[in-house]
Amino acid sequence: MTIRVFVTGGTFDKNYDYLRGELYFEDTQLPEMLRLGRNTVDIRLRTLMMVDSLEMTLEDRELIARNCLNCDEERILITHGTDTMVETAKVIADTVRDKTIVVTGAMVPYRFGSSDGFFNLGSSLAFAQTLPHGVYIVMNGRYFTWDNVRKNRQTGFFEELR
Amino acid sequence: MTIRVFVTGGTFDKNYDYLRGELYFEDTQLPEMLRLGRNTVDIRLRTLMMVDSLEMTLEDRELIARNCLNCDEERILITHGTDTMVETAKVIADTVRDKTIVVTGAMVPYRFGSSDGFFNLGSSLAFAQTLPHGVYIVMNGRYFTWDNVRKNRQTGFFEELR
Amino acid sequence: MTIRVFVTGGTFDKNYDYLRGELYFEDTQLPEMLRLGRNTVDIRLRTLMMVDSLEMTLEDRELIARNCLNCDEERILITHGTDTMVETAKVIADTVRDKTIVVTGAMVPYRFGSSDGFFNLGSSLAFAQTLPHGVYIVMNGRYFTWDNVRKNRQTGFFEELR
Amino acid sequence: MTIRVFVTGGTFDKNYDYLRGELYFEDTQLPEMLRLGRNTVDIRLRTLMMVDSLEMTLEDRELIARNCLNCDEERILITHGTDTMVETAKVIADTVRDKTIVVTGAMVPYRFGSSDGFFNLGSSLAFAQTLPHGVYIVMNGRYFTWDNVRKNRQTGFFEELR
Repeated sequence: MTIRVFVTGGTFDKNYDYLRGELYFEDTQLPEMLRLGRNTVDIRLRTLMMVDSLEMTLEDRELIARNCLNCDEERILITHGTDTMVETAKVIADTVRDKTIVVTGAMVPYRFGSSDGFFNLGSSLAFAQTLPHGVYIVMNGRYFTWDNVRKNRQTGFFEELR
Repeated sequence: MTIRVFVTGGTFDKNYDYLRGELYFEDTQLPEMLRLGRNTVDIRLRTLMMVDSLEMTLEDRELIARNCLNCDEERILITHGTDTMVETAKVIADTVRDKTIVVTGAMVPYRFGSSDGFFNLGSSLAFAQTLPHGVYIVMNGRYFTWDNVRKNRQTGFFEELR
Repeated sequence: MTIRVFVTGGTFDKNYDYLRGELYFEDTQLPEMLRLGRNTVDIRLRTLMMVDSLEMTLEDRELIARNCLNCDEERILITHGTDTMVETAKVIADTVRDKTIVVTGAMVPYRFGSSDGFFNLGSSLAFAQTLPHGVYIVMNGRYFTWDNVRKNRQTGFFEELR
Repeated sequence: MTIRVFVTGGTFDKNYDYLRGELYFEDTQLPEMLRLGRNTVDIRLRTLMMVDSLEMTLEDRELIARNCLNCDEERILITHGTDTMVETAKVIADTVRDKTIVVTGAMVPYRFGSSDGFFNLGSSLAFAQTLPHGVYIVMNGRYFTWDNVRKNRQTGFFEELR
């Protein structure tokens, strides 16, 4: 089984620019993380964009959805900023049928010592292998169907709508 | 859904004793790891033992299996040393039916910077939520059924028998 | 020998706010760093302010200088943002005689895995114990006298003027 | 000013062998640590041996002392296991005059997240630049003259004899 991974940016992949004193996007950390996790799942990784999800446009989301639609793989993992991952999941759900697509992210950049990203990569990779067709958000060790989840901006945790 | 977690020791939970200059078991790191992973899955954790899996006896494995049999939860995650996790999985499979039980571990102690443990915790927690009844080894981002897996001692990776 | 430590903020002590997705100041990391370094030098620590050094005013620098002047200790270590540490060192040198004062900082926040902060704390603490009276910048494993140093903004390294 | 660095092993440079499940020596971590510390002090590094200091022989200590004697540099930093660093310092002091030689180590391997090694490298590098001729142990943010120090094996801290 091959898992297609699409990288779109988000906190997951932010790094610290010591000359400017601010966070920025460099290359994705995912290959290093998969090596550290000693992963042997067959992965095909492609970076689609490197953006903060608050700055993601509808065109960006449609591009992601199209890539999910057109790729050969039936099981897809997307790394994405947490602020608008639910919106992107909706666009994907409107576009793609008959695939298992999980969208994950991180609240703290992977390069920070205390990131949740490595844990989320492990759980999302497992959910991508086992969940039935559908579009899901994976955060906090759990999966949520795309139409029954929101990010609670007070706590930073994801929760079901009903 | 509640996941029952049984801690048995293994590399996962080894720490460095700076007075003796050797690795030892202290308390389990799992609660801290679950907090760092921002986990919101309902977890009931119990430490059954803290041993190197090379020193685990048949009585130890039977104790683990009995705990799996007798606990209320249907979904169980066990942290275990990698050297004999397959043997323990066999004892559990001989004892317990109608539950989903995943056994995971780490090749590098969590307290080392480069550990696979946090990734494995994420993936095993996800597999524990989604796999059908059975006993599984979870390592390297994958799950293996207990009777079709071995640890390759030359590479440190888990692989299918056939 | 007691070393007086004054904390003023800077990259050293920045942490990641996962709700806002930006860097901010929380409490200083210094006590934890000194514990991790297994430090047994007698330290008296006081936080004077928690600011980005680009936002530091002349009043702020004079407050720091006055604290150096009025404290009982003869040897002082100041943590400070790197962008204007040389300006603050000048104000201190104009105010205080007969004390050894070292100003240090970090290019990368301590809470990031790849920070120079822990190394800089070690070297600045050592220089504070051994250098003759004067005001110094300590970065990159070296000490510089306050009137013969600048931060090279292209490289992020400190260098002598002549 | 050039600092000569001699690597001899010790906890400082121990790494985790995930196939054997034990600590071992690989290459020294010092170049990576100096890069991370953004060090610009001129360093000439040479690995003399990679041994646990409990297994160090008198011949080993004499080899270290001879290297201190014969190298061109006047200022020398030695990384060494903490258990017998005082004995080695004595052999060096019996052999070498007119140089500043600091011996440092770590209680926890650098590759462990919670190591004191990076802090000790910073402070020993600073002491090597500033202390007068003599042989010193640098641990816990302090320097000790070689004939007035011991490792307290109950606490793991270094302390003066009198």
